[in-house]
Amino acid sequence: MRYSAINLREKLALFSDHWSPKIIAQMNDYHFKLVKLQGDFVRHSHVATDEVFLVLEGEMRIEFGDGHVELKAGEMFVVPKGAEHKTCAAKECQVLVVEPAGTINTGDAGGAMTAPNNIWI
Amino acid sequence: MRYSAINLREKLALFSDHWSPKIIAQMNDYHFKLVKLQGDFVRHSHVATDEVFLVLEGEMRIEFGDGHVELKAGEMFVVPKGAEHKTCAAKECQVLVVEPAGTINTGDAGGAMTAPNNIWI
Repeated sequence: MRYSAINLREKLALFSDHWSPKIIAQMNDYHFKLVKLQGDFVRHSHVATDEVFLVLEGEMRIEFGDGHVELKAGEMFVVPKGAEHKTCAAKECQVLVVEPAGTINTGDAGGAMTAPNNIWI
Repeated sequence: MRYSAINLREKLALFSDHWSPKIIAQMNDYHFKLVKLQGDFVRHSHVATDEVFLVLEGEMRIEFGDGHVELKAGEMFVVPKGAEHKTCAAKECQVLVVEPAGTINTGDAGGAMTAPNNIWI
């Protein structure tokens, strides 16, 4: 059988839109997604799950009600289940997100920045 | 509250042993682990779970009964649940592994290369 590596840079080159996660792999019932961030996202939470951000290129910030964390390439953070958070990036930031399949990017907030949760690249 | 990024390079600098995964983060009931590979691991499978390998530095190979995949930095692969596989690396390779908390590195094979599954760094 032919087995193929998933190359993150090659996958990142396949899209340019912001705030719209693309699925690149599934592990059990979890998805690995690539997303490009630029500007401010909507504050939201995921009531049923933690959410992992691993920065591949650039810098991002995650703001909480009582503090924030700055992440640069090679850094990750686990947003705890239920924690209100807002992601933002002054310049484009490329991120690997890990979360359960079906997770909605805007969580409990909904609204115009809600993206499809089933786009594979 | 003070939130801190998890810096992969800083964590990798904290250990030098091979084939001994170190936990750096937990997302729900999954662990994110760093491991340094060099040489040949034991062929094994994980009967209950998929397993993700994301290469951070170097090159590795995963051999299956009917083929193999080569991974270099910036590439990942999901080993399917139940698939017999053997990891190997000619030179040291630094890898991020994602799998359920409690997963044993040697899976169903056991033996001398079995490492603790609960070491945080």
